[in-house]
Amino acid sequence: MPASTKPRLTLRIDLGPGQSIGPGKMRLLEAVAETGSISSAGRALGMSYRRAWMLIEQMNLGFRRKVVTTQLGGTHGGGARLTPFGEDVLKRYRAIESKAESGAKSHLAVLARAMKPGKAAPVKRTRLSR
Amino acid sequence: MPASTKPRLTLRIDLGPGQSIGPGKMRLLEAVAETGSISSAGRALGMSYRRAWMLIEQMNLGFRRKVVTTQLGGTHGGGARLTPFGEDVLKRYRAIESKAESGAKSHLAVLARAMKPGKAAPVKRTRLSR
Repeated sequence: MPASTKPRLTLRIDLGPGQSIGPGKMRLLEAVAETGSISSAGRALGMSYRRAWMLIEQMNLGFRRKVVTTQLGGTHGGGARLTPFGEDVLKRYRAIESKAESGAKSHLAVLARAMKPGKAAPVKRTRLSR
Repeated sequence: MPASTKPRLTLRIDLGPGQSIGPGKMRLLEAVAETGSISSAGRALGMSYRRAWMLIEQMNLGFRRKVVTTQLGGTHGGGARLTPFGEDVLKRYRAIESKAESGAKSHLAVLARAMKPGKAAPVKRTRLSR
């Protein structure tokens, strides 16, 4: 296989009208679990607090049970953590993803080999690279 | 299972820097195969000729071989068809997709059941529905 980035699958799951989960929301759940706060999680992903809060609210309202609970605190404060249900959603998403990737392995290898080599993003070259 | 739309997986495959295939490009290939022209294919998908052409060009330039060939003709004219390689890419994408869906079935059912019922898009109700 020629030098190239490993092919990667990204999954979006549409669960109903206006309700989907995908890599962004799942990374956000992981970041909440790691940081214990919505604002820190958003910051870790380069996302505004407002956007992080909104994505979590979408999930909390769309599912029968909450995926994240918050404790009251200071400004944007308090803490946040995944509920057991939120952990389950995340686990299932990752399971679907890894199953899809292993099932796709041979096709992905063929597709990756079919790519033109050296089609990397334009590389800045300076005469004296430094 | 409560009445709800069937959960659906959507896959994007990143094959290298700036090179990905997903549902939009794959539907476009199918439409080219069906209509025999890039402009008709774009039209069928509510896409400008310019955008349809650009997506195909991205694939034609990104892969070692073309996915679509065109014959010269009038304005935006001539015909277009999938190459055997283009057919192969499409077939592999669909194979990855259906394998992922069947592998995800039990998780998708659980996630769908976990959705709040009746969270459908706002339904217009008239007093006398017609």
